[in-house]
Amino acid sequence: MAFSPVLYPYKLTRENFIVVIVDILRATTSITAAFDNGVKEIIPVGSVEEARKWKEKGYLVASERDGKTLDFADFGNSAFNFMTPEVKGKTIAYSTTNGTQAIEMANKNGEEVAIGSFNNLKSLTDWIIDLNKNVVILCSGYKNKFNLEDSFYAGALAHHLIQSGNYTAECDSVTVAIDMWLSGKDNIEMYINKAAHRERLRNRGQDDVLEYTFTIDNSSALPVLRKSDKRLINLSVNKE
Amino acid sequence: MAFSPVLYPYKLTRENFIVVIVDILRATTSITAAFDNGVKEIIPVGSVEEARKWKEKGYLVASERDGKTLDFADFGNSAFNFMTPEVKGKTIAYSTTNGTQAIEMANKNGEEVAIGSFNNLKSLTDWIIDLNKNVVILCSGYKNKFNLEDSFYAGALAHHLIQSGNYTAECDSVTVAIDMWLSGKDNIEMYINKAAHRERLRNRGQDDVLEYTFTIDNSSALPVLRKSDKRLINLSVNKE
Repeated sequence: MAFSPVLYPYKLTRENFIVVIVDILRATTSITAAFDNGVKEIIPVGSVEEARKWKEKGYLVASERDGKTLDFADFGNSAFNFMTPEVKGKTIAYSTTNGTQAIEMANKNGEEVAIGSFNNLKSLTDWIIDLNKNVVILCSGYKNKFNLEDSFYAGALAHHLIQSGNYTAECDSVTVAIDMWLSGKDNIEMYINKAAHRERLRNRGQDDVLEYTFTIDNSSALPVLRKSDKRLINLSVNKE
Repeated sequence: MAFSPVLYPYKLTRENFIVVIVDILRATTSITAAFDNGVKEIIPVGSVEEARKWKEKGYLVASERDGKTLDFADFGNSAFNFMTPEVKGKTIAYSTTNGTQAIEMANKNGEEVAIGSFNNLKSLTDWIIDLNKNVVILCSGYKNKFNLEDSFYAGALAHHLIQSGNYTAECDSVTVAIDMWLSGKDNIEMYINKAAHRERLRNRGQDDVLEYTFTIDNSSALPVLRKSDKRLINLSVNKE
């Protein structure tokens, strides 16, 4: 796994793998929420300029930088933004400070990408185990730095995969992330209060989304970007 | 702090700081041991080619890659290599897989550099507190990846600095590193057994140095590279 995009790609010792992108506050949580609310597709967009072009083409656009919704965008980066009937059946172009850039990085590298959040932890874990693929967890971090909430989630996912008996940890970052999860899981609110980004959100008045963010398994969404695709779809809908 | 050289330099929010380089297995532990055994100066050398040039100039050279002593070198990278009267008063050119490259990186950046190991934990902490400077801890990691033993030491150093009442944690990596230290400090051997590099050393028959490596405060060495210097000296000797 990688604690930050600058730690990816590293030399991979295995083939046949899937990259799980993690940006708990807030992109991957919001993408999960968007699919729960009936969004058809999400186009991950790295740059603000590209997001503006999608807007000009008539798409709905979600775009923020440093927590602020950009002036031309329809939505910001809060999961609550997507809890509206307006998004049902729509395609949304989505660009954020950290998360969508990590998605683009993995996709450019030719990898299959899945979106991880606490909300879809069990459905994602079960799907990965069924796939029987190796997993690289890529934390979006904060401006390429390590962050607590993404690493904490990486530990949760790794712990669940290893508990299944089909996976082992391949590097020290997984070992430490699992220790983080095990030490914090019984009091997530207290654990996450230590995170620097928790403080940033509080200062911006954006910490209303925290309770939703750390609610485990209230979603069955499986946002996936196929290798050759440029759009995230919800596999759990396609299965039905 | 940075869990890996690729996470450094990041945007520094403070001026007036010192960079503490950490490569517990084995460079910074061995550098501390070398000064304890009377070495006069250590020239950190990034590349093998440069190490060879120092040898041709008549210097003692310590050089390894992936745990193997290079054929032209006088010493490898074990702390035990320097526990010999042969090194007393000498200048040694030193090049390793990870550690000396991190030193070069910080030095090129124009920063004052100190060397951290479990052996000189207290003397380094006391010296830093006296200096009253901000601190960036740069973990050498393993081939730019996160590693457990360097991060564990970073937690120990950060914990001691914060306990002094003069320091606060500035980023999530410090928070997690301190949690690592607090969870492992009462049974260091068991904690370090989880590290991937522990396994690598065992496979190479090089784990004899572990007990020495994780002995706390058996050294008063203060290996420091001044901003304009290219050579590490032992400040604890110069103080006397």
